Amino acid sequence: MSAYRALNDGSLPEFLGSLPQVKELLGGEPAGWTVEEVGDGNLNLVFIVRSPKTAVVVKQALPYVRLVGDSWPLPLSRSYYEHMALVEQGKHAPKLVPKVYHFDRNLALIVMEYLSPHIIMRKGLIRGIEYPLFASHIAEFMAQTLFNTSPLATTASDHKRRIWAFADNIELCKITEDLVFTDPYRIAKLNHWTSPDLDEIAAQFRRDEPLKAAVQRRKLQFMTSAEALIHGDLHTGSIMLTPTDTRVIDPEFAFVGPMGFDVGAVIGNLLLAFYAQDGHEARVYARSPYRHWILMQVEQVWRLFSKRFIELWDKSKSGDAYMPELFQEPDGALAFAAEKQRFMRNLFVDTISFAGIKMIRRILGLAHTEDLESIEKPAMRAKCETKALTLARRLVIDAERLTGISDVTSAARAIHASS
Amino acid sequence: MSAYRALNDGSLPEFLGSLPQVKELLGGEPAGWTVEEVGDGNLNLVFIVRSPKTAVVVKQALPYVRLVGDSWPLPLSRSYYEHMALVEQGKHAPKLVPKVYHFDRNLALIVMEYLSPHIIMRKGLIRGIEYPLFASHIAEFMAQTLFNTSPLATTASDHKRRIWAFADNIELCKITEDLVFTDPYRIAKLNHWTSPDLDEIAAQFRRDEPLKAAVQRRKLQFMTSAEALIHGDLHTGSIMLTPTDTRVIDPEFAFVGPMGFDVGAVIGNLLLAFYAQDGHEARVYARSPYRHWILMQVEQVWRLFSKRFIELWDKSKSGDAYMPELFQEPDGALAFAAEKQRFMRNLFVDTISFAGIKMIRRILGLAHTEDLESIEKPAMRAKCETKALTLARRLVIDAERLTGISDVTSAARAIHASS
Repeated sequence: MSAYRALNDGSLPEFLGSLPQVKELLGGEPAGWTVEEVGDGNLNLVFIVRSPKTAVVVKQALPYVRLVGDSWPLPLSRSYYEHMALVEQGKHAPKLVPKVYHFDRNLALIVMEYLSPHIIMRKGLIRGIEYPLFASHIAEFMAQTLFNTSPLATTASDHKRRIWAFADNIELCKITEDLVFTDPYRIAKLNHWTSPDLDEIAAQFRRDEPLKAAVQRRKLQFMTSAEALIHGDLHTGSIMLTPTDTRVIDPEFAFVGPMGFDVGAVIGNLLLAFYAQDGHEARVYARSPYRHWILMQVEQVWRLFSKRFIELWDKSKSGDAYMPELFQEPDGALAFAAEKQRFMRNLFVDTISFAGIKMIRRILGLAHTEDLESIEKPAMRAKCETKALTLARRLVIDAERLTGISDVTSAARAIHASS
Repeated sequence: MSAYRALNDGSLPEFLGSLPQVKELLGGEPAGWTVEEVGDGNLNLVFIVRSPKTAVVVKQALPYVRLVGDSWPLPLSRSYYEHMALVEQGKHAPKLVPKVYHFDRNLALIVMEYLSPHIIMRKGLIRGIEYPLFASHIAEFMAQTLFNTSPLATTASDHKRRIWAFADNIELCKITEDLVFTDPYRIAKLNHWTSPDLDEIAAQFRRDEPLKAAVQRRKLQFMTSAEALIHGDLHTGSIMLTPTDTRVIDPEFAFVGPMGFDVGAVIGNLLLAFYAQDGHEARVYARSPYRHWILMQVEQVWRLFSKRFIELWDKSKSGDAYMPELFQEPDGALAFAAEKQRFMRNLFVDTISFAGIKMIRRILGLAHTEDLESIEKPAMRAKCETKALTLARRLVIDAERLTGISDVTSAARAIHASS
């Protein structure tokens, strides 16, 4: 049993050397391994440990929020939930998550696959890189993990055990409840935005009663809807990829929650990247083709996800919800197909609403995204952010009135074209 | 520590005598106490233990379903959940549940208040007794327990702990999933109905594709919607009352589920009682005033419940969902009020749909109700049941199209008047 201590360049090789499987993987002796701390996230230590032969990543939770400091304690148990989620996701989408080599619960530490030459997707989007397989990969990840951890695919008993297993990931859920669903709509110390440019719109959002009502409805859903094991933080900073390979990382926010929160996170973050392009193009219109590409990804993510989800559902016979034996050919099959479409329609509305909420928190709340933060000129950044907020608000308020994903991209395009 | 053994007339006094609080309450010595086994439910032993001074009720779980026999094992842990639910409900509605004197987890045994001269409400409904305070009492019970165990009233953390605490009441939930939401819609060994009279309508229900789709949608909701700590089996057999006092008993099916399942259980069982009256009246129309009274209770239960629920919500400042600080006077208060109405509208639709589903299972599934079973002539019973099924189906299919509770009672009345 190891007691918790934050590891560092000095202590990490010795620790890894004590793990036979990891030692064999790296090869040679710990003295020949190099350690680089690369954590740029908000919460954890992340090391790359290299041997002459290969490399591994070591992620260790810190007992506080790294972004804020030790004044904001955060339980180490999040590493336990991250590991459990990685293992579960790995069952359903083995090629789309990093391999796990070792987990130490007391050290809150996961040794996992070093992904190379993968980069964080958000950085790729800032550079204007197209990823031709991204949409189908992330659609596959979401369809597999969300469908297979819901009672559409499993027994009610298994679902209750899954809810139970993640129910104590309370503090991480609370971060989302506070920072995503609450703080952007009130005066809160940690909020910030491009000021003074966005002062007025931030104030408008704080007194936008229909918007707040809609967001609070979604907050209640986040706290009470136990649909599937969700990643819980599926933005483009939680995706590492190359043109041919895609991996979803960092599921420490995982719990059994609403499916649309994951799908909405992907779509909302793509839309943020879309509006950030104006700030990254060398000259006006230079990134027009890339903007178009991003919107195509928004459409593809939803279309491929919903198609794949239905395919999995059509093939499944194991779920306690909608047992296939109740719906016999020909009439039953038709009614069941219509019911699946109805389910996907509801999931679409959830997705679009959560997408808008995720966009707003990244502009008016505590944690922003590099897509927009890296735009140096405040006036340009504010212009991009205002357009993103305009779309985001509409997605939250009008989600039920949008007939399909192309309504979302049309609105995104129209708002971008407006002055 | 006591090991599990089913107690009986002989062993019970000695056991109770070993509990100082219970011994003092009953007074005297165990030899002077009498024991009567009165369990007429489906699952448990229930004893009344009388002393010259007073009496207590002892409820002990059996390791199998009493209705079916030891071929259907059922975990003793249900007693643990029942006790936990009784305690929680007692916090919010202390006058509406029996007092608990002792709980023994190993014996799966609860010693509680002996309610006298209360009778099971279902028996009162069969006899045609009016209970003038019932609607306001049950509305109070449901509003208090459902509101106060939801994140409308508590923190998200407390809500997650509540979900966790009841998540393993798996087997009792499975009874509902199977017997309420599944078996009535397929050939199942345990199903029975008034045959041959209802053979055709039972077959129709098994191939009624829109009905089955709607019921399965509700089954999924039952498995994934963690809105509040629900009683889980709130029919008129779980209510004991007098004209002035009402108590809700037997919450062993409790878990964190959809609020509408409880409210729907009450309304659905009142509607069954309504249709059963034809079989209990001495001559045609003799029970017309009582039928009217029952339908008034259906309306009052919903109206008083929703009014009380909103009152509690208006006064509350403690919930993590819809934090009041986000909605300031005057515009915010208006928007919040509208949002509450929207919430109640959704809860109404859930309630009515669950009410219909609960009615169907009592006529086509395993466990029937005395209201209808005690009608001796099969033709009369079948007539009552057919009308009840006709309304029930409409409630499930049309829940979203009903504008309010008086639509439900109008439909009930119209179907009753049809031949």
